[in-house]
Amino acid sequence: MTPRKATLVGTGLIGGSIGLALRRSGWVVVGTDHDAANAEVAVERGALDAIGEDPASDLTIVATPVGAVAGEARRLLDAGHRVVTDVGSVKASVVAAVDHPGFLGGHPMAGSEQDGIAAATADLFEGATWVLTPTAATADDTFATVRSAIVTLGADVVALAPERHDALVAEVSHVPHLAAATLMRLADDRAEEHRALLRLAAGGFRDMTRIAAGHPGIWPDIVGENRDAIAAVLDRLIEALSEVRQVVVDQDRDGLLDLLEQARAARINLPARLGQPDELSEMRVVVPDRPGSLAEVTTTATEADINIFDIEIAHSSEGDRGVLILLVETDQAGGLQQALVERGYRVSHQRVLD
Amino acid sequence: MTPRKATLVGTGLIGGSIGLALRRSGWVVVGTDHDAANAEVAVERGALDAIGEDPASDLTIVATPVGAVAGEARRLLDAGHRVVTDVGSVKASVVAAVDHPGFLGGHPMAGSEQDGIAAATADLFEGATWVLTPTAATADDTFATVRSAIVTLGADVVALAPERHDALVAEVSHVPHLAAATLMRLADDRAEEHRALLRLAAGGFRDMTRIAAGHPGIWPDIVGENRDAIAAVLDRLIEALSEVRQVVVDQDRDGLLDLLEQARAARINLPARLGQPDELSEMRVVVPDRPGSLAEVTTTATEADINIFDIEIAHSSEGDRGVLILLVETDQAGGLQQALVERGYRVSHQRVLD
Repeated sequence: MTPRKATLVGTGLIGGSIGLALRRSGWVVVGTDHDAANAEVAVERGALDAIGEDPASDLTIVATPVGAVAGEARRLLDAGHRVVTDVGSVKASVVAAVDHPGFLGGHPMAGSEQDGIAAATADLFEGATWVLTPTAATADDTFATVRSAIVTLGADVVALAPERHDALVAEVSHVPHLAAATLMRLADDRAEEHRALLRLAAGGFRDMTRIAAGHPGIWPDIVGENRDAIAAVLDRLIEALSEVRQVVVDQDRDGLLDLLEQARAARINLPARLGQPDELSEMRVVVPDRPGSLAEVTTTATEADINIFDIEIAHSSEGDRGVLILLVETDQAGGLQQALVERGYRVSHQRVLD
Repeated sequence: MTPRKATLVGTGLIGGSIGLALRRSGWVVVGTDHDAANAEVAVERGALDAIGEDPASDLTIVATPVGAVAGEARRLLDAGHRVVTDVGSVKASVVAAVDHPGFLGGHPMAGSEQDGIAAATADLFEGATWVLTPTAATADDTFATVRSAIVTLGADVVALAPERHDALVAEVSHVPHLAAATLMRLADDRAEEHRALLRLAAGGFRDMTRIAAGHPGIWPDIVGENRDAIAAVLDRLIEALSEVRQVVVDQDRDGLLDLLEQARAARINLPARLGQPDELSEMRVVVPDRPGSLAEVTTTATEADINIFDIEIAHSSEGDRGVLILLVETDQAGGLQQALVERGYRVSHQRVLD
């Protein structure tokens, strides 16, 4: 069996980690980096078999800063690369700019306050959530190829519309990062005057500010591409902190306890990695052979908080329709069926027997 | 040699951990808890030798919620306990309310999002910073006894004026905690509508919100006692986030990079646990036998960011003066000498030869 082949454009922390993980799974990986020395280190570290780009790759991954993704993706598609994905932290602007059946936006929710090829590791994505943002433009084969490779990396795949992705990561990633940096900066400002300050910084403060140690270089692009969503969440954060301030000034004990109790319950219930499903059901969704069905079905599942454990795309020989075969937890099959029927799909499901 | 004896009032996470650590070092520890069942568990877990309070204790530690500390400390001093300290997160109001030569405020900068005797562990304080807040009212022997016990627990002791402590912990503990809870709560509000949201919460968000999982019960007291400092820091945080928002909206790349670069440098340089000193010097400080000298000398060292590795209090036979013998890193001896001379002390120092 011929090994699958990937091209990596950008061999930093994320790109390098993808290279290490794919090669561990038997892929042949070639790649390049804006900084040629980085690509050489990627070869030395075993993240690349060789330096270069191969249009015959089964999968091409753009792992550059967000601002460079659209240009690189178009260049690679024009050069004949068939399936191209990226790992940028903002999706709507990039997906709109590329707009090609062979492109699928992606975003692994994993990282580190470290960066660069030196910090790359093959298990960076184990248990991480990896968002894909299919649209009506995305070819089914593109989705299937990218999804299958990501599962190989150990990540859990979820599909979201690009705009929804951007709004949600502003909330759980971009603004928290800016808030961590702001807390660290405020303490640092005071520390110039009160040198003992930082000696009082205990585990909680250290946890909260850890991500502020990351390299700032990626942030102007992220903030540039996701400005509106970030500003909206910052507005909500500022408003919420003003409410907290009022509770403090008013000595409103019950109000304070309510706020903290809600936060505590939410933090304790923060979903961990997906467990193994108790029992799987196979769901067959008849889809018309029109663009966007795959994106609609997969993002509908995510919006309903239902995980798709596997997906197979079967095209009908008659050519005007196809069937998506989804593996979902049996408990959730009814919910997903209902959501899809409401959107006009014909759906059946049955338990998978061992 | 008779073992030293301690009384613990309050056997939750902090009190229980102190009991475990002192007993490991050979102390006999008795104690009580507002909830008698907790004290029984503390005995079972080995944090107490027996339930009770012993006025003949060398050291009595009040480990109750902040709001109860002053009342308990006065009660214990009235009952004949000679040296009483506490572990509350706010100091100025408590220290002012007790105002007794036998009382010394304390605050270990250690904890956990868990709470209760079940989470207690003998090494909770290893490497933690433990603030003591001596004042003119604090007897030298009180300071020496408390300090020596805390060193036994593995903590690094720093002395700060109570008001300064409160301002600084508002910055590195209280407001960060409220901010973590607020971020978690905002995400939770959105998660009701967008159920996929929390699946996107990766390591950075988890780190930032970890402390929000702690039990809210201690916070009304803390916020009540340290209201003004907390409100002031919240004002600064809100203002700083508004500046960040402006940088985002203006797409001010350089401004953003400056903010993040300052935070990054500060986070990377966050002081870790004190290392072993390269070379120690013994510093002799002649102090008049008047109240407050010990507090002034020790807090002056902290304000100058100079660690005192050991301290011995020698009273002169003449009765009108004494000598403090401090062990400090040789590199820092000159700086501390200068700071103390400026405050009118006579100081000499010499290297400690191996």
